[in-house]
Amino acid sequence: MGFSASIEKLIEEFEKLPSIGHKTAVRLAFYILNSSEADCEEFANTIMNTRKNLKYCSICNNITDSDPCPICSNTKRNKEVICVVEDVRDIVQIERTHEYNGVYHVLNGVISPMNGIGPNDIKLKELMTRIGNDDVKEVILATNPNVEGEATAMYISKLVKPFNIKTTRIAHGIPIGGDLEYTDEVTLAKALENRTEL
Amino acid sequence: MGFSASIEKLIEEFEKLPSIGHKTAVRLAFYILNSSEADCEEFANTIMNTRKNLKYCSICNNITDSDPCPICSNTKRNKEVICVVEDVRDIVQIERTHEYNGVYHVLNGVISPMNGIGPNDIKLKELMTRIGNDDVKEVILATNPNVEGEATAMYISKLVKPFNIKTTRIAHGIPIGGDLEYTDEVTLAKALENRTEL
Repeated sequence: MGFSASIEKLIEEFEKLPSIGHKTAVRLAFYILNSSEADCEEFANTIMNTRKNLKYCSICNNITDSDPCPICSNTKRNKEVICVVEDVRDIVQIERTHEYNGVYHVLNGVISPMNGIGPNDIKLKELMTRIGNDDVKEVILATNPNVEGEATAMYISKLVKPFNIKTTRIAHGIPIGGDLEYTDEVTLAKALENRTEL
Repeated sequence: MGFSASIEKLIEEFEKLPSIGHKTAVRLAFYILNSSEADCEEFANTIMNTRKNLKYCSICNNITDSDPCPICSNTKRNKEVICVVEDVRDIVQIERTHEYNGVYHVLNGVISPMNGIGPNDIKLKELMTRIGNDDVKEVILATNPNVEGEATAMYISKLVKPFNIKTTRIAHGIPIGGDLEYTDEVTLAKALENRTEL
């Protein structure tokens, strides 16, 4: 005999979540069973409502409560620079630096032929429309520094070329606080190649 | 700028769960946002319904879908032996051994004066009622082998004594597959003390 059927169902639901194994799922399920009915209802409602009311910014494809999103509707942001990212979470990461004052474009993925994701499966057309219509001076390609991210960045840079717009890629190199001893050779080669004069 | 308010709320709800830190909460929240609305609704409904329909066995206090629970209503189980456990999860663990054929009693906690939990805060009265009314031959005390669990076991054994019922405590010793070198001295002392003749 295991747990009762209803608890097994709850455990199963938790197990579907990423990075949650069976033991953690059991712990979470029992946390739910031991918490008050009101807390439980709030948790369930938040899950349902957030998913149901999910809205994307019609300009940059950012997840937002109001359309356009706070960044696109902010008149103080420089609309001439578009930073292209893979995911909404990347926007939050870049915003945290407080160094960027342009706007964003979320691709919602990267080109990945291995996974059957082509240029038409990500928000590339929308990006090209923005570049064609708006007065864009620079496109920063901030996709991840892996195979798919690099390929996507290369692909976009070729598409942007005819528009005569400056296209840049975020720098690769040794992370601040990193250690040369533990840096892989590709990163180190990039760091040497892109050395800056002091 | 962080995430939109509704996402922040969802992240916060996930952060309330045990063993879920901020980064995992963000990952879980985005998993929810990326899954289908139907899956989301099922997840939310399971949480709400399982909590709402939570039922305890009127005999042993086990969580169950039907009252009495499958163990208490099973005529093949030996009702003369009651195994006392702290938590519903312990029943599942013991059932997994396939070695026990008696019934259970869930205390729903242990006596812990430090946390303000006294004998009246756990299901002790119910246990004594069962012992008084039913034809019980043995009470197995299977609380955890820590300070509170030991104290609770001692407390119960004193309460049971006047009934002239055999009271036993699960054995302490070196776990199977364990290593003497890494066994703490209290466990090793117990293992020596409770050695069995071959």
